[in-house]
Amino acid sequence: MSLLVQKYGGTSVGNPERICNVARRVIETQRAGHRVVVVVSAMSGVTDGLIKLAQEVSPAPSERDMDVLLATGEQTTIALLAMAIHAQGVPALSLTGAQAGIVTDGVHTKAKIANITPRQLLRALDDGQVVIVAGFQGQTMAGQVTTLGRGGSDLTAIALASAVGADLCQIFTDVDGVYTCDPRLVPNARRLDDLSYEEMLEMASSGSKVMQSRSVEFAKKFGVKFEVRSSFNDNPGTMITEETASMENVVIRGVSVEKNQAKVTVEGVPDRPGTAAAVFNALAGARVVIDMIVQNVSVHGATDISFTLNQADLSTAEAALRPVVEKISAVKTTARAGVAKLSVVGIGMRSHSGVAARLFDCLARGGVNIQMITTSEIKIAVIIEEANVAEAARLAHDAFGLEHGPYTV
Amino acid sequence: MSLLVQKYGGTSVGNPERICNVARRVIETQRAGHRVVVVVSAMSGVTDGLIKLAQEVSPAPSERDMDVLLATGEQTTIALLAMAIHAQGVPALSLTGAQAGIVTDGVHTKAKIANITPRQLLRALDDGQVVIVAGFQGQTMAGQVTTLGRGGSDLTAIALASAVGADLCQIFTDVDGVYTCDPRLVPNARRLDDLSYEEMLEMASSGSKVMQSRSVEFAKKFGVKFEVRSSFNDNPGTMITEETASMENVVIRGVSVEKNQAKVTVEGVPDRPGTAAAVFNALAGARVVIDMIVQNVSVHGATDISFTLNQADLSTAEAALRPVVEKISAVKTTARAGVAKLSVVGIGMRSHSGVAARLFDCLARGGVNIQMITTSEIKIAVIIEEANVAEAARLAHDAFGLEHGPYTV
Repeated sequence: MSLLVQKYGGTSVGNPERICNVARRVIETQRAGHRVVVVVSAMSGVTDGLIKLAQEVSPAPSERDMDVLLATGEQTTIALLAMAIHAQGVPALSLTGAQAGIVTDGVHTKAKIANITPRQLLRALDDGQVVIVAGFQGQTMAGQVTTLGRGGSDLTAIALASAVGADLCQIFTDVDGVYTCDPRLVPNARRLDDLSYEEMLEMASSGSKVMQSRSVEFAKKFGVKFEVRSSFNDNPGTMITEETASMENVVIRGVSVEKNQAKVTVEGVPDRPGTAAAVFNALAGARVVIDMIVQNVSVHGATDISFTLNQADLSTAEAALRPVVEKISAVKTTARAGVAKLSVVGIGMRSHSGVAARLFDCLARGGVNIQMITTSEIKIAVIIEEANVAEAARLAHDAFGLEHGPYTV
Repeated sequence: MSLLVQKYGGTSVGNPERICNVARRVIETQRAGHRVVVVVSAMSGVTDGLIKLAQEVSPAPSERDMDVLLATGEQTTIALLAMAIHAQGVPALSLTGAQAGIVTDGVHTKAKIANITPRQLLRALDDGQVVIVAGFQGQTMAGQVTTLGRGGSDLTAIALASAVGADLCQIFTDVDGVYTCDPRLVPNARRLDDLSYEEMLEMASSGSKVMQSRSVEFAKKFGVKFEVRSSFNDNPGTMITEETASMENVVIRGVSVEKNQAKVTVEGVPDRPGTAAAVFNALAGARVVIDMIVQNVSVHGATDISFTLNQADLSTAEAALRPVVEKISAVKTTARAGVAKLSVVGIGMRSHSGVAARLFDCLARGGVNIQMITTSEIKIAVIIEEANVAEAARLAHDAFGLEHGPYTV
């Protein structure tokens, strides 16, 4: 008998009929001999409706008030799912984040989980009940309602799985798992059977937004094995675990793309300590999230620092940089939106050369110009024109033969 | 400087615009020098929407699950009202029933308040904040969400007013106060300036459903002075307090009617101890709520017991009585729906004769037949055909000259 944590997202519980489907799935899991903890999101559309109401009463709602408001979304779902499970004659207990013992810090709308004391939850499991927990929410030590920010329900599931020592955490969503590339771009993309945490992180931070990096990092830190699978069919999903022996030969597992990027270059930065820090402190102060950073070796005592960011943040970034350029005696900044990032990801890459060459070669033969390059141990990422991104994804996917599964040597 | 508890019902907070109106009203009250605790209901329609969702996932939702579900309604309102007040630059703190320290017993969907420990609330008041509390809800000692049943938000307001020692509890609703009679039946009905708790109770239990008896009883028990007034204008309302000296001359304060009643008579009940108990135990077991009970002196060792009830409960009551009639050797039961109750209410009545005669006389002159009569110290109630109720209300209202205010001698 295993202990499973199952998480169902907003689309999976989007209406009463789907809630009843989730109830059936949960009950089947329990009948198969497992103990089940279910984490649910707000029904799709509910959170947006609440945000709209908030905007109608206040131009700038406080974050504490937003948390009190938004937490009702998940509370509604736990009650409805408990009813649907009870209606099948199976005992179930619904718990808010607070009742599940999820204690967070006091940073409203993006609280961090401090600890979990799931006493009531464990007692109910021992009594043979299905336990249903509201995702995305917790409470402070002082009893204030908090929410965990984007991807919060996934985090609730992963963190609970860790706290109760679950055998597996299943993230049910509206896709079948993690694919070798976005099937909308590359029609012959394949579902991956397994991935390491690191690969999942690189895929997540490279545009494969099945899950937020934050939840994957938590899973990696606490060794929570999890599966991403569909709530609309019984297909197996993608299992994310520690790197295993069988993964060793794999070089490339997927191609990930992220559109709507912009690139900024600060030209002629004097080559002395503190100049890069000045640039990125200014950006951090303006709350601009930076993705890639590239700085080449300096020539003649000055260098160019380039970085990429979401293009929605571009004007904020440019405004933040204006005083800095003068202060550090750089020459100027140049910026451009309309670029995209393409990454090839694979844990085996770190011990194999030739991957970069194969990638650059296939793009060159397709006439795709590479504007920037960065690499990590398990990823090579390039910045290209956004107009080229679908073509580039197909070229890379083909070059590594990913339609047949992971690229091995 | 007074401490006020203000309660706004579902219609008063029915949409974002109305919530902003309530915010303005609360802020005006604070600016006038008062400390304010606000109790709110769910936005009108929200509770019904949640109940509909529940019915779509389960034929018979558990009461615990219903409480978790329905409590989200008031939680939504407190967050929105806090935002609307903050938007005017006034500090406000929203609290769920649990956070306001409202501890109840564990009877889900109709919990009773056990005690209130409003520590956080009092601290916030001392800090100059407006405190907003979710009505209708509390939690058990074990941390389970409970709701207080019908009229629960009024009860939250009255109970909080008692717990914090408020100078006045203001119940804001969609009517201007308590009237001498329902203005839809008697167009020249007048708003009453004041009422005693007892009179308010008789009016409430006689169909003037401005508030549930339960909240009035609580106010009476703990001496909470409260006012019923409109949230849509600035008219003064009706003040409900202990009986005062100025009330002594008043004989009749209002006429109250309740439609959709049914009457049941158990005929030929043997005149021995235990027979009435058998009848009403059977009804209580079937959860039928009884209103009037009339039993006349027995003739020839048997008597007739009559009672009235809401006509929706009639078939349940008849089924419950069937085995009892045989068991106690009564003759039979007769039942009829389509009757109504008309009551004249006034605290001075107990020391004045002639009220009953005046009532019966005006009805007789109008051709309204009286089917049953009961009296209390401050009320005379009659059962009549429902078809006669509007005419009877006008006759009684005129007979006591209530269009000029309370009837005095």
